[in-house]
Amino acid sequence: MSRYRTIGVIGGMGPAATADFLTRLVAGVPAAHDTDHPRVLVDSNPHVPDRNAAALNGADSPGPALAEMALRLANNGAEVLAMPCNAAHGWADAITAAPFVSMIDAAVAEAMAHNPRRIGVLGVGATLALDLYGKASPVPVLAGDLAVVQPAVNAIKAGDRSHSVRTALANAAQALAMAGADVVIAACTEVPLLLTQADVPVPLIDSTAALARATLAAAAMPASVEA
Amino acid sequence: MSRYRTIGVIGGMGPAATADFLTRLVAGVPAAHDTDHPRVLVDSNPHVPDRNAAALNGADSPGPALAEMALRLANNGAEVLAMPCNAAHGWADAITAAPFVSMIDAAVAEAMAHNPRRIGVLGVGATLALDLYGKASPVPVLAGDLAVVQPAVNAIKAGDRSHSVRTALANAAQALAMAGADVVIAACTEVPLLLTQADVPVPLIDSTAALARATLAAAAMPASVEA
Repeated sequence: MSRYRTIGVIGGMGPAATADFLTRLVAGVPAAHDTDHPRVLVDSNPHVPDRNAAALNGADSPGPALAEMALRLANNGAEVLAMPCNAAHGWADAITAAPFVSMIDAAVAEAMAHNPRRIGVLGVGATLALDLYGKASPVPVLAGDLAVVQPAVNAIKAGDRSHSVRTALANAAQALAMAGADVVIAACTEVPLLLTQADVPVPLIDSTAALARATLAAAAMPASVEA
Repeated sequence: MSRYRTIGVIGGMGPAATADFLTRLVAGVPAAHDTDHPRVLVDSNPHVPDRNAAALNGADSPGPALAEMALRLANNGAEVLAMPCNAAHGWADAITAAPFVSMIDAAVAEAMAHNPRRIGVLGVGATLALDLYGKASPVPVLAGDLAVVQPAVNAIKAGDRSHSVRTALANAAQALAMAGADVVIAACTEVPLLLTQADVPVPLIDSTAALARATLAAAAMPASVEA
């Protein structure tokens, strides 16, 4: 039998980040054969109501759509749910159909392993406005310059992976380090599609990779069940 | 409304190839915003009965599992189905729940655009034994050396992306070109995870990329519906 429970992915926010998450789930399994991998059900739905518009402008909540996606994934056999979008975690309470692995908690846990005094966060409007990282972090959080991060994320969503976008994100990360952040979290799933550790002078936590690791850990069967 | 019908992916054969397919579906859409992308439902199921064992040794057929996956995807809203695994197309007849885009036909169509006299095929045991490409191609097909391709594919499935595996596949492609193939199809979804055009002296058709293009074309809404 499988060594993993079935994983359900509440995705599409954005679609490239969901593909990246799936790639990291695969890479995270020490597999000799296809059958060593977990079964993964993905709903890559780019039509979930906009998270920034909901948090900043009072537009339609994404909560009901996320709840429905979670329920359908669970009804189809998903036993552990994950959502590779930081901002959407503002409505994570709507996800009740199966155990949910928080991307925010996963990223904060990896950041705290570096014993930081302060954590820098490169996130978009909803993530900052809802203080998702501030609420989850035991140490103070410094927000990256939204006037830099939001246009960069929008550019990446539009397929722009140019040097100038990468440089803008690197500068925002550098500014966080100068302001006292001992570690920086790429707290929007589009950011690690372009920004790498080589661009940042302090440890960079990839929230997508952190979620993939936490999801595989949560989905792993106890050894006694595995046998 | 969306410019695309919902796409269902019968995946997990192998999981890395499914993640690659999802990445190519995203890259294939000229998108300014998340909402420009299609909704994609993925069942990445690495527990489908082994295609090579079924074709070569009379082991359990993967057909019933594929039929069930297709039905579930369709019941969840998938309107166009695709399966990023060449060998599994030996049981494509089992997929009847929604319109199905054939990877074999997509790859052959892209190969024929080069007006070849013969097409070389780098595929695994089931793909060759069931003559999936020979049946679909209007010109003769030359099979790559299975004693090279099968171990290379198995290595890639086990996470080995080393130079030696890539060189083995490059040599098999080179041998096909020497034998008269004017174009070579990477006819196993693991092959294009490592082999690139730079490794092959004739045009190389990536069956995963060909399927992504054909799937997006099949899922695109007519302009009149789009408005």
